[in-house]
Amino acid sequence: MNSYYNFVIVGAGNLGARLALALKDAGHTALQIINRNQEKARILSEKLGASYGVNIKIDERADIVFIATNDDSIPDVIKKCKNKNFLFVHLSGSTSMSVFNPDMENYGVFYPLQSFTADVDIKFNNIPILLEASSVANYKILKDIAYSISEKVFEMDSDTRLKCHLGAIIAANFSNHFIALGENFLKENGLPVEILHPLLDEMISKIRKHGAEKAMTGPARRNDIVSIQKHIEILKDKPELQKLYTFVSDSIINYYRKSNF
Amino acid sequence: MNSYYNFVIVGAGNLGARLALALKDAGHTALQIINRNQEKARILSEKLGASYGVNIKIDERADIVFIATNDDSIPDVIKKCKNKNFLFVHLSGSTSMSVFNPDMENYGVFYPLQSFTADVDIKFNNIPILLEASSVANYKILKDIAYSISEKVFEMDSDTRLKCHLGAIIAANFSNHFIALGENFLKENGLPVEILHPLLDEMISKIRKHGAEKAMTGPARRNDIVSIQKHIEILKDKPELQKLYTFVSDSIINYYRKSNF
Repeated sequence: MNSYYNFVIVGAGNLGARLALALKDAGHTALQIINRNQEKARILSEKLGASYGVNIKIDERADIVFIATNDDSIPDVIKKCKNKNFLFVHLSGSTSMSVFNPDMENYGVFYPLQSFTADVDIKFNNIPILLEASSVANYKILKDIAYSISEKVFEMDSDTRLKCHLGAIIAANFSNHFIALGENFLKENGLPVEILHPLLDEMISKIRKHGAEKAMTGPARRNDIVSIQKHIEILKDKPELQKLYTFVSDSIINYYRKSNF
Repeated sequence: MNSYYNFVIVGAGNLGARLALALKDAGHTALQIINRNQEKARILSEKLGASYGVNIKIDERADIVFIATNDDSIPDVIKKCKNKNFLFVHLSGSTSMSVFNPDMENYGVFYPLQSFTADVDIKFNNIPILLEASSVANYKILKDIAYSISEKVFEMDSDTRLKCHLGAIIAANFSNHFIALGENFLKENGLPVEILHPLLDEMISKIRKHGAEKAMTGPARRNDIVSIQKHIEILKDKPELQKLYTFVSDSIINYYRKSNF
């Protein structure tokens, strides 16, 4: 079934903007963009042919309202939405669906598992979308909308979604941090960061095929204490990085001993 | 200039084998594969049309000998190589070129900055090769050979190469570890690890374009203490992972405050 919906977006940040554009491309109608910063709302609404505003007063023709604000602001937005007729959804990985209780009748969660950055265009068709809804009928609507923009749709309750979000932070944000630290260390030593790119490409390619555990290499994986000691010595003038190096190397050694993870 | 060289490989592990095959494809001649495990040497030598053996007795026609053993075994191999006529190189990121002193006359380092895994085929043309040599004439030979298999060749002294290697470990091995921990956490909660792949692809794509520092997202980057506390609570039954989560989150928060990294 292909149904088209009238939608409203509250919050015109990276995620709200990308989602609104993807929904419009899929044939849905953007009615209204609501955002604290009026200029941001205006710029996005022009791309969508929607109206815009700073006050939360939902257009009566709306089928669904996406709350795309910061997680902290979701309860405020819910309190300000007087009308109980629309289907309200938030887009947060770590906010339980129970946040809508008892203010709403029809609600759900529509969480795209991806990180959205300003000015970086992104295709939705490959992004996993994790759904949860207050009723079977509402779930059907969310599924319909999710499949109109992505091929990867999952039903997931709030507890499991929170765990999925946490796993994603460990895998993606934490790894990004160590890549930043590595890049930074190279720069400080006059080396080009691009020298790392083939290594990172190969790592991701192996992870996709065999999983990260099998893809693991390096001195800590080999329990090569001599190399680890050399590295700790090089980092003697960088106490923070030295501490991290030691901590993570120990963690790797323990992990492959399969102790207490 | 295109010169072709007769080469010998000591050590038929992943790196030695991949390098030997790439050199042969580029037109060089494999004379001999020497390896402690004879069967491994035989299998590789057959692919190369080379002779093989377990004892270090270098074929007199050799131009260059690649020592592709574990780092720990490099000094042993050097001690066993009586002949001072050949050009000897090791392939190690963290071993100084001075390891060849005083046993050799002509020596150098030929370090491909990539991780090599058994049974994973890899193209050399994109791999950075870091070179160092005991003389200008020897450097010329190494450069000639390196450019015959890769487009990315760098001259780098032992100290800088060690730092480059360390930066690569922090960026690639450490990030791989956190991806493994994230995958593992998903599996334990019945979630498919493939759900992370679009996120990892997008991360690497952003890192290539903008660097990892700018690509960073997530609760610690936003200093979102509420989400971090939620995650720490979820991990209460996994003390090792909880400790790591806290440690790395603190590190991210400190890093973006630009304190003492």
